[in-house]
Amino acid sequence: MPKPTPTSAGDYTAIFAARLDALKTEGRYRVFADIERLAGQFPRALYRPAPDAAPVDVTVWCSNDYLGQGQDASVMAAMQDIIARTGTGAGGTRNISGNSHELVELERDLAAWHEKEAALTFTSGFVANEAALSVLAKQLPDCIVFSDAANHASMIAGIRNSRAEYHVFRHNDVAHLRELLAAAPADRPKLVAFESVYSMDGDIAPIAAICDAAADFGALTYLDEVHAVGLYGPTGAGIAEREGLSHRLDVIQGTLGKAFGLMGGYIAGSNLLVDFVRSFAPGFIFTTALPPVIAAGARASLKSLIAATELRRRHQANAARLKELMAEAGLPVLASESHIVPLMVGNAEACREAAKRLLERHKIYVQPINFPTVPRGTERLRFTPTPYHDEALMQALVTALREVWRELFLPLAA
Amino acid sequence: MPKPTPTSAGDYTAIFAARLDALKTEGRYRVFADIERLAGQFPRALYRPAPDAAPVDVTVWCSNDYLGQGQDASVMAAMQDIIARTGTGAGGTRNISGNSHELVELERDLAAWHEKEAALTFTSGFVANEAALSVLAKQLPDCIVFSDAANHASMIAGIRNSRAEYHVFRHNDVAHLRELLAAAPADRPKLVAFESVYSMDGDIAPIAAICDAAADFGALTYLDEVHAVGLYGPTGAGIAEREGLSHRLDVIQGTLGKAFGLMGGYIAGSNLLVDFVRSFAPGFIFTTALPPVIAAGARASLKSLIAATELRRRHQANAARLKELMAEAGLPVLASESHIVPLMVGNAEACREAAKRLLERHKIYVQPINFPTVPRGTERLRFTPTPYHDEALMQALVTALREVWRELFLPLAA
Ligand SMILES: Cc1ncc(COP(=O)(O)O)c(C=O)c1O
Ligand SMILES: Cc1ncc(COP(=O)(O)O)c(C=O)c1O
Repeated sequence: MPKPTPTSAGDYTAIFAARLDALKTEGRYRVFADIERLAGQFPRALYRPAPDAAPVDVTVWCSNDYLGQGQDASVMAAMQDIIARTGTGAGGTRNISGNSHELVELERDLAAWHEKEAALTFTSGFVANEAALSVLAKQLPDCIVFSDAANHASMIAGIRNSRAEYHVFRHNDVAHLRELLAAAPADRPKLVAFESVYSMDGDIAPIAAICDAAADFGALTYLDEVHAVGLYGPTGAGIAEREGLSHRLDVIQGTLGKAFGLMGGYIAGSNLLVDFVRSFAPGFIFTTALPPVIAAGARASLKSLIAATELRRRHQANAARLKELMAEAGLPVLASESHIVPLMVGNAEACREAAKRLLERHKIYVQPINFPTVPRGTERLRFTPTPYHDEALMQALVTALREVWRELFLPLAA
Repeated sequence: MPKPTPTSAGDYTAIFAARLDALKTEGRYRVFADIERLAGQFPRALYRPAPDAAPVDVTVWCSNDYLGQGQDASVMAAMQDIIARTGTGAGGTRNISGNSHELVELERDLAAWHEKEAALTFTSGFVANEAALSVLAKQLPDCIVFSDAANHASMIAGIRNSRAEYHVFRHNDVAHLRELLAAAPADRPKLVAFESVYSMDGDIAPIAAICDAAADFGALTYLDEVHAVGLYGPTGAGIAEREGLSHRLDVIQGTLGKAFGLMGGYIAGSNLLVDFVRSFAPGFIFTTALPPVIAAGARASLKSLIAATELRRRHQANAARLKELMAEAGLPVLASESHIVPLMVGNAEACREAAKRLLERHKIYVQPINFPTVPRGTERLRFTPTPYHDEALMQALVTALREVWRELFLPLAA
């Protein structure tokens, strides 16, 4: 056999370059804004236009640190304190020396908060979804998954990687879910996976009706409350808490990366279910545990979130006010039911250009949201007003938006 | 159609319980030891036998905080300082407001360290492998992956999830790799994935020979240096650095969770390759970024690791000394080429019982390593002596091991 001609490294380079060029042509190549947050001055931050450029003062309008917890003094102090006491890392996987006391306590706290027997932490909300859904769908013999069409990439990853049969029901469409459930063999295990607050449109799932459907067909229920934990319900435990439905969900999944202001993710459920995921999910088993500094921060943040009734009130009030101001200005804001304020553009290039002008001319930082985060044709700017975005900041935002909309001939509300 | 009988929640519970019982019967149900590390006293730690029990003083012998970096004063100070300046979290995904200045700088530092154009961070080393391998194997048209038989679960996850064709070569067997490469069509993209230091046996890959094979057949090379970064080479950049081979690897992957003493993972490679992974990997795109506190800690840790020549010397010296002491005592230690000291037991129950006695009677904490982390029949205790495990601790360990080996009639070295 003749020695095969080596594929030159150049060939791979050409493939990478071609794929990246295609993104650029489509206007959806992503350039990350270099941002330095400033504790105590949220939502103000420093933006560096180039790696070594002088930083510019901006207002952040797209953070998922929804309540500004990322600068909560009690959380900062708890983190600094535990670093002094226990150092910087976990030192191992959960099983091999990395099971820190703080993490054990955090899981107890999270379980109690969601009115569940047990909770389990992961390195992120993404990993929580991927690991938990893939292990449930794969290890329950012959499981069929029913997945909302708008589910997050991390849930889709978990479902796909399980290789289980799955069916996608139309977004928030319980009748369609029922149809699909009814069409499946009654004796096969079933899992219904959905979110409470959908982060790009800001709409909310009909949780009770979905749980009713699941119960009628004997399906487990898996709810992603990533964009709701800390924000809804009397103690901030999420939409399920607000609606008194926690007990009807087999799994409540959340993140420590958004309203908590940190990083990490978790699931909460029955002792057996959580132990099952703990014992069989590679994405949980074979990775370094969250360090004590994150666990201690999350415990402090949880304590603060439970008491944050006034912050939650201001959060909702500011979101409602911003939607009102935008609507009055004729801007095509989506009438969301939540704290998320999507302003529709509908074109990747225009969306990018609008964001660029807001940043460069108005010192307003909002990231353009393009495909694959949202479907093509629904490109948007997504604003997340926090309790710290006051009336003056909102007025300045709307004035800047009107200017940019005019300059770029962007569509106003119908 | 009659209304199907709901599967009662009890059915799922029964499945979970049965699977967990099977683990228990096999002796490989995992109970995590509740550990509280003590900054400044490493490898001493507090162990809690039950959630609310009084803590007991133990010596940790199984941490992957290989150099005790988890208590490095400069790292702790850097983390406390950045919390004070920027708060607790990133506040978003990399694309949506989470691209902190510290993280940008960390990636520049990591790239330079590995003599690569670019680096990209992930929430963990697991996610780095899963995300990078799955995107490369999936997006390179018709790619074939060649994977070492002993590769880590995270690499296997990435390769499997890509759904690309893959072939497993016998562990560290370059002739077998060449056979498989030769049998594959010359014109298809190829990727060879392997590790430098294998963490359970402590052996080291023939990197140069593997790179030669890859070059002859035009394959990309992907090296996991998770158990080597910080520990080998003049600046601690890993085995590839030690052997002057960094330039021959298309991807060097590492973790911030082991020798760095923190959490997080990364890849380093060419600008185009890294940009490709950055632009296409869901596990990178759709998740909250590592927070500034981790990035700043990692930068400080990297600076300290680059200068840690003396720590690296003591690390290797202590590992060699422990292997010597164990061999002299007739204990069945594996003659590893690295800092990892595996002591073979060969039975899950016995392994668990030995670890239990070491902990309860001798205040020595070492986790039993059972399936699926190692193949059945090769269950072991895996010791990781650090520069801080001095002669007295090693002597005490070997004395305790002899006692436990005698009591449990465990096999001595042949
Ligand atoms: C609905 C949803 N689930 C899960 C995640 C992942 O959470 P994390 O950022 O903690 O990985 C996100 C966002 O990142 C999300 O929007
Ligand atoms: C070889 C190897 N690769 C990757 C990982 C994952 O790294 P991390 O702990 O940062 O997720 C590990 C261990 O956890 C490992 O042993």
